[in-house]
Amino acid sequence: MAKKEGQFFTKEKTKVETLERGIHHWFSRPDITESDDLIVVKVDLEPGGGHPFHIHPTMDEVIYIISGQAEQWLEKDVKNLGPGEAVYIPKKMVHATFNSGKEALSFLAILSPAADLEGSMVYVDKEEPWKSLKKSAN
Amino acid sequence: MAKKEGQFFTKEKTKVETLERGIHHWFSRPDITESDDLIVVKVDLEPGGGHPFHIHPTMDEVIYIISGQAEQWLEKDVKNLGPGEAVYIPKKMVHATFNSGKEALSFLAILSPAADLEGSMVYVDKEEPWKSLKKSAN
Repeated sequence: MAKKEGQFFTKEKTKVETLERGIHHWFSRPDITESDDLIVVKVDLEPGGGHPFHIHPTMDEVIYIISGQAEQWLEKDVKNLGPGEAVYIPKKMVHATFNSGKEALSFLAILSPAADLEGSMVYVDKEEPWKSLKKSAN
Repeated sequence: MAKKEGQFFTKEKTKVETLERGIHHWFSRPDITESDDLIVVKVDLEPGGGHPFHIHPTMDEVIYIISGQAEQWLEKDVKNLGPGEAVYIPKKMVHATFNSGKEALSFLAILSPAADLEGSMVYVDKEEPWKSLKKSAN
């Protein structure tokens, strides 16, 4: 196998996608860097936006808050996290992230090992107890 | 094996260490989160500080700039990266990061798969061409 290449992601070189769960700025993904190990993406969420309760069966995740305020769920625990704070989410653990502030929320989502992200998410937000949890928190 | 636990890293709960290569705020490391997959650490470097040329033989890395200005080397290429910019560094690729600004530089270093970080760094900064490269850049 050929040696993999490094890549600088300046503003001009960064792939940006607008998805239902926020604007995504990609810094590592198998089809972008060829990494088998790392998915790294900055997500910008407007006030009121969020990423509902879900699990990644095969990937550990760290979410790091860059700016704004996040209502971060880790199973039935919830904390408001601000810039410089983070959460570690092991494989199979239910979690959700909502913008709980009045400004945009930007966070880095870091997942490993790398896989197709869309195929590595299982949503549970229509099931109890998750369906009622978010409602009771707001 | 018992199910691994999630962890919130609020400011009060984050382990901070002062190392020669900057102040380290740990969000994932095998002895902190038990993750086999992720090392995530925020590094604060004062002006003039840096992390000399080295490789990680077994780990891919992404460096994401949070604030300040970084002189980021990827083998013999160099770019100044600012907030919101990043670099992907595959296993075995020589790299270095220096604070090239007048304020503190903060970046997130993300490595995978997780291993003992100190045992997973091989410095080459005393060898050519790396020894002369940094000098010529300043």
